[in-house]
Amino acid sequence: MTTLAHLDTPAALIDLRQMQANIDRMQARMNRLGVAFRPHVKTSKCTPVARAQQAAGAKGITVSTLKEANAFFADGFNDILYAVGMVPAKLPQALALRRQGCQLKIITDSEASSAAIVAFGREHGEVFEVWLEIDSDGHRSGLKPDEPALLTVARTLHHGGMRLGGVMTHAGSSYELNTPEALTAMAAQERAACVLAAERLRTAGLPCPVVSIGSTPTALAADRLVGVTEVRAGVYVFFDLVMHNIGVCTPSEIALSVLTTVIGHQADKGWAIVDAGWMAMSRDRGTQKQQQDFGYGQICDSAGQLLPGYTLSSANQEHGIVSGQGRPEADIATRFPVGTQLRILPNHACATGAQYPHYQALAPDGTLACWPRLHGW
Amino acid sequence: MTTLAHLDTPAALIDLRQMQANIDRMQARMNRLGVAFRPHVKTSKCTPVARAQQAAGAKGITVSTLKEANAFFADGFNDILYAVGMVPAKLPQALALRRQGCQLKIITDSEASSAAIVAFGREHGEVFEVWLEIDSDGHRSGLKPDEPALLTVARTLHHGGMRLGGVMTHAGSSYELNTPEALTAMAAQERAACVLAAERLRTAGLPCPVVSIGSTPTALAADRLVGVTEVRAGVYVFFDLVMHNIGVCTPSEIALSVLTTVIGHQADKGWAIVDAGWMAMSRDRGTQKQQQDFGYGQICDSAGQLLPGYTLSSANQEHGIVSGQGRPEADIATRFPVGTQLRILPNHACATGAQYPHYQALAPDGTLACWPRLHGW
Repeated sequence: MTTLAHLDTPAALIDLRQMQANIDRMQARMNRLGVAFRPHVKTSKCTPVARAQQAAGAKGITVSTLKEANAFFADGFNDILYAVGMVPAKLPQALALRRQGCQLKIITDSEASSAAIVAFGREHGEVFEVWLEIDSDGHRSGLKPDEPALLTVARTLHHGGMRLGGVMTHAGSSYELNTPEALTAMAAQERAACVLAAERLRTAGLPCPVVSIGSTPTALAADRLVGVTEVRAGVYVFFDLVMHNIGVCTPSEIALSVLTTVIGHQADKGWAIVDAGWMAMSRDRGTQKQQQDFGYGQICDSAGQLLPGYTLSSANQEHGIVSGQGRPEADIATRFPVGTQLRILPNHACATGAQYPHYQALAPDGTLACWPRLHGW
Repeated sequence: MTTLAHLDTPAALIDLRQMQANIDRMQARMNRLGVAFRPHVKTSKCTPVARAQQAAGAKGITVSTLKEANAFFADGFNDILYAVGMVPAKLPQALALRRQGCQLKIITDSEASSAAIVAFGREHGEVFEVWLEIDSDGHRSGLKPDEPALLTVARTLHHGGMRLGGVMTHAGSSYELNTPEALTAMAAQERAACVLAAERLRTAGLPCPVVSIGSTPTALAADRLVGVTEVRAGVYVFFDLVMHNIGVCTPSEIALSVLTTVIGHQADKGWAIVDAGWMAMSRDRGTQKQQQDFGYGQICDSAGQLLPGYTLSSANQEHGIVSGQGRPEADIATRFPVGTQLRILPNHACATGAQYPHYQALAPDGTLACWPRLHGW
């Protein structure tokens, strides 16, 4: 049996007990709020993780690339939302998926893309299911719920013979907040914008069966979701230090960590050098501007117990520097001798996971399984 | 024939003409300085790139992981320096490589690791070739060239029956500089530290055939390398915006870019949304604290011509925001319509390349080849 002590490092470790707790917490919340839940698999890009989400009650999945759509469809997932604005060059891939029986939904927020979808759909005799992307917080893409173009784009699709499946939004600005009140307010704003867009469509006689919203912080903060039919969230499955700073998890609820080995020291500086650098953690410094900056990650012992004050304070490609707070710790080499294994909690689970071809999934009984994950496009 | 216009985006594009120019520039410099050159393949992790370096005159390669060592050895590279401090748990992998005939060199900077190498080598009847890592600038690992431990560690290895192959250092602090004078001074410091370490070993009657130094900035700034036998450098093969800010390349010498497609707009903000987010660029914000902050990258047109003032100013996982300087450009959708292809020069080529399973190598005649690259450990 492979044990942690025999794993080659760095390795991306999933604590399956904690992952299941995170999945159950979110699904129970969605059940209470009376909405369907469509997890975003861009966080894990890993079939066994998505299957655990599905087993807990999730309906369908959200993907960030057509490579994910293809891979998850091949693994038996059928109801797939591709949540990045469709462009003409990607329509042949979407068509191929639909022709294989995948219930792929695509999104758009512009007249130009809608016209291209209609033209391509008609040319190939395909009725694409299209959702309209709504801008609920000004952070990225989407039609504003009150702008005239919302109806123009919807009519282009509907009268062009495509299936208008609904509206969707993502309040990514929630990542910049850190109080329950602000998060609840952002969740209300996200809901209101999307529901308004749906109401405008319906008032204009256009179909809008789905009203889909979500981000991990707003999904965990929303107190009512009247008018919403489904919620999407991704990073909650693992959580990370950014989510901790936002206030939606504790460090001990973070299910993803990087297993690393101490390879040397600079005792006069209080440094232990480890074999996890930025390649192992990603370059994500998402906690840099938050209330607590964890450098490249929070250090835990090999059993996953937090070592408060110790962070991966600096990183090169394959070298990381572990140090404590305050004065350099002269006996760092005694505390963490060469060969010591540590775990590092990541700033951003989506970015850290992407650095690995596979996860090491650690079951409650201590057994390990190697779970492949997708890479690239 | 696949052309750029038919490539699925985002894609990591190598301009082969420029890559070859970068290789030739560095090799010619090393030839003039009278030293061997051992490129660090952690930048490309790609065999055809390393073969081009070898064809230009490079002797051996440097790797950052044992996975790279295995893969490049399988592809015919034999003289390999693993430039991360050896730990006991990785010795079996190193042994397996050497038993297959790989001339693998390993490094150490501590008594603990040296003793473990000796014990393991004796147990398995293997004479490991070990180089001592020297700290020339205080930025990371290494023995200080004037500390007593240098000789202690060397004697442990030598008297323990291992082969003392030489000394090596990497002046990573050069990345924080940006004038020719400062870079030349850092190159002199790097050289002096490593040569001093070698002289102390030789004076003590210990062998030290190799004196190996290098980083891209110091390799391009060094004016004399007396006492040095070889230089290592990695990122010069592609260059990037960090190197441009340091002052060792122009933007047009950057051989790696990310091909992306415009997927939408927020005209009131002057934003074009593209399908290259941080997953396509990496989270590396290395230019953030430099003299010119390029956000997540500098925008070029699809032919690679710079579009001054346009950067990837913000990025989510699969969405990037392209914007110009100053006032929002109201006609951004006219300038970059949906479907427009752009190229983005990266902050850090090593980090950006790592996000891709393969490169698209663009030859001077416009033909494209798909070159796989390594991922993970």
